Amino acid sequence: MIPSYAVLPDGSATSPRGFTAADAHAGLKTDGAPDVALLVSASSCATAGVFTRNAVRAAPVIYDQELLAERPGRIRAVAMNARVANACTGAAGLEAARAMARAAEQAAGLPPRTALVLSTGVIGVPLPVDRVASALAEAATRLSPEGGPLAARAIMTTDTRPKHTAVRLDTAAGPITVGGIAKGSGMIHPDMATLLAVLTTDAGSEPATLAPLLKRVADRSFNAISVDGDTSTNDTLLLLANGAAGVDPSRDGATWKSFEDAVLHVARALALAIVEDGEGATKILEIHVTGAATEAAAREVGRAIARSALVKTALYGADPNWGRVLAAAGAAGVPLAVDRLSLATQGDGAEAEEWLALAVGGATAEPDLARAREIFAQPRVRLRLDLGIGRAESVVWTCDLSPEYVKINADYTS
Amino acid sequence: MIPSYAVLPDGSATSPRGFTAADAHAGLKTDGAPDVALLVSASSCATAGVFTRNAVRAAPVIYDQELLAERPGRIRAVAMNARVANACTGAAGLEAARAMARAAEQAAGLPPRTALVLSTGVIGVPLPVDRVASALAEAATRLSPEGGPLAARAIMTTDTRPKHTAVRLDTAAGPITVGGIAKGSGMIHPDMATLLAVLTTDAGSEPATLAPLLKRVADRSFNAISVDGDTSTNDTLLLLANGAAGVDPSRDGATWKSFEDAVLHVARALALAIVEDGEGATKILEIHVTGAATEAAAREVGRAIARSALVKTALYGADPNWGRVLAAAGAAGVPLAVDRLSLATQGDGAEAEEWLALAVGGATAEPDLARAREIFAQPRVRLRLDLGIGRAESVVWTCDLSPEYVKINADYTS
Repeated sequence: MIPSYAVLPDGSATSPRGFTAADAHAGLKTDGAPDVALLVSASSCATAGVFTRNAVRAAPVIYDQELLAERPGRIRAVAMNARVANACTGAAGLEAARAMARAAEQAAGLPPRTALVLSTGVIGVPLPVDRVASALAEAATRLSPEGGPLAARAIMTTDTRPKHTAVRLDTAAGPITVGGIAKGSGMIHPDMATLLAVLTTDAGSEPATLAPLLKRVADRSFNAISVDGDTSTNDTLLLLANGAAGVDPSRDGATWKSFEDAVLHVARALALAIVEDGEGATKILEIHVTGAATEAAAREVGRAIARSALVKTALYGADPNWGRVLAAAGAAGVPLAVDRLSLATQGDGAEAEEWLALAVGGATAEPDLARAREIFAQPRVRLRLDLGIGRAESVVWTCDLSPEYVKINADYTS
Repeated sequence: MIPSYAVLPDGSATSPRGFTAADAHAGLKTDGAPDVALLVSASSCATAGVFTRNAVRAAPVIYDQELLAERPGRIRAVAMNARVANACTGAAGLEAARAMARAAEQAAGLPPRTALVLSTGVIGVPLPVDRVASALAEAATRLSPEGGPLAARAIMTTDTRPKHTAVRLDTAAGPITVGGIAKGSGMIHPDMATLLAVLTTDAGSEPATLAPLLKRVADRSFNAISVDGDTSTNDTLLLLANGAAGVDPSRDGATWKSFEDAVLHVARALALAIVEDGEGATKILEIHVTGAATEAAAREVGRAIARSALVKTALYGADPNWGRVLAAAGAAGVPLAVDRLSLATQGDGAEAEEWLALAVGGATAEPDLARAREIFAQPRVRLRLDLGIGRAESVVWTCDLSPEYVKINADYTS
């Protein structure tokens, strides 16, 4: 199928009409890099959010959830900072999130309660609100349609590259653009890492239609990279639709489907960029689980494989230890018939017919081990696990676990 | 409270009367070390087992579960091998487990269907039954009451030391001995590692009374070290009671409680030995969760902290990053009131009054960070997390995550 959208060069959250952004310095990053970003829409946005399900929610998550419940159709801006997560900061932290939102609204000349806030960084450290507010005021003076990539850079923590992209979708009623920025630190064990992503579009929409679309997209993108994107204290995915394109894709089913495909493309591109930039990652594993009873079951099995330290270390060592993959699948908490499990692998750029069977009927397929090692040594390794139960499937991505991951995380706060 | 039992020097599964063991070579280990062990009881044992809950169960687990369901009061022997897990081996693997059991019964002159089998090692590789059978025949000729530590050594995989212990309990009706051997590889992520433990006692008992006792003991020992001891393909904990001491501790409540304490002591000592010998481990973390609604909830929170790669890497780096501990607790899936969470730490051998508060009311307790770093640099670090909800508690143990762990697991099969 030819996608109905085109990827824009250097696209970002400011590619859709009516969105501007800028970065600024609050002195939170010790190397003097920009650490604050402001994204503003020229008009009110219908907004949907997907947030962490961790019982320990960061202050900005609590603030955003309340604001979105109250006025999901009136959002104008997103204020962001790196290096301090404003999590485990008590009542003072919640007041700091409020103050950060107010500072963004005042800086951009917006009505009260129209700015969302995103924070990422160390947990348990108070947010220096005054410095963040000054930086937001400075950013507001330089808002630009070219500011998206700068905002993406400002919210980086242990990321080594900024993540941003956009696509243009041609509909019968005219073109729509969907863009986004994201950051992710340490997606090797993303259950604790903070994932922030802001998607924007100039399509028009209603919060009530946008919310289920974003949930579906999240399940097939950010929730499909490694596992437990839902358990950090700060994880947040936002989708802001400002309607500047004068096109409401929800008017007919086919256009709405194309719009969802475009949003999914942006979300998946950002999610994959996070995996590829995983802390210490040297290679990527794509896990395609087929033959499941439901898509959710397929995803659970994929995630269980993706979070297995033994699978990830085997990948790092280019060791085609397929038994660890089956064992990880068995630990997913999903009913499995072991004697129906089939596992195959494929390297980078390989054609579909080049799959190498590793296991059949839950036991060894007696593969050519030299060939299996060659595949596992490639920078991008695919696994296809068929559960032999039903017809549902899901794809999950993860990266390997290297000694470098340990080094990065052994001394993060100091 | 003074424990009513005494730890025996160099104790093991052959310390209780009537148990003998021996090791032998089947050539499974490439370095020529013993890799097969046989444990035999002079009389039938009441036997209980706790097995992996992984959907992908190894052939020996399937065999043992069937045999224990059929005749839990007639067990005479346990045959063990290292290096080949006999998991993901299909129908041939199940036949191999049966053949291994038969070989043990024939070697030791026992009736059919009286031997259990335990395997650990690489998944997906066929078990060389003939070599294992020959080794078992050889072992049967050298069975000895001193053989327990040798059996413990034979079942080691990436373990660096054998794990065995025993205690003697004096009851009104006479002395009882409880002993055990265990192995565990890579308890840093034990969800895939294989944990094998065989506990023995010369107490008399019935399978129906022994089973719930073993379940309680497992929850407070092997299931309390790191997390998901229940999800490997081969995890097995057995308790064999042969009655050779002529004492049935279940006759009165107080003696039964003392007996459970003694079994728990043996199980916990073996479980802690596994953590201390964790792959690449440089230090141990004891996590005491208090103030929970239920003991199960406390244990879930402790396990969530114990499995967090970010907590483990912070421990490795002696970085008192307490926010990661709270974030990990929040991801446990247990309802928490963040503003009631309190966290304190303590180093090795410290007195109870020397706890250093790290967080109070879900936010920083503004600890002396230099002191916190000193504590986190010690070989044994304690954390006490109070949930502020109820009165139940639980203790969980784990070790740090070091670059060495990755190296050990990156190239295991080859």
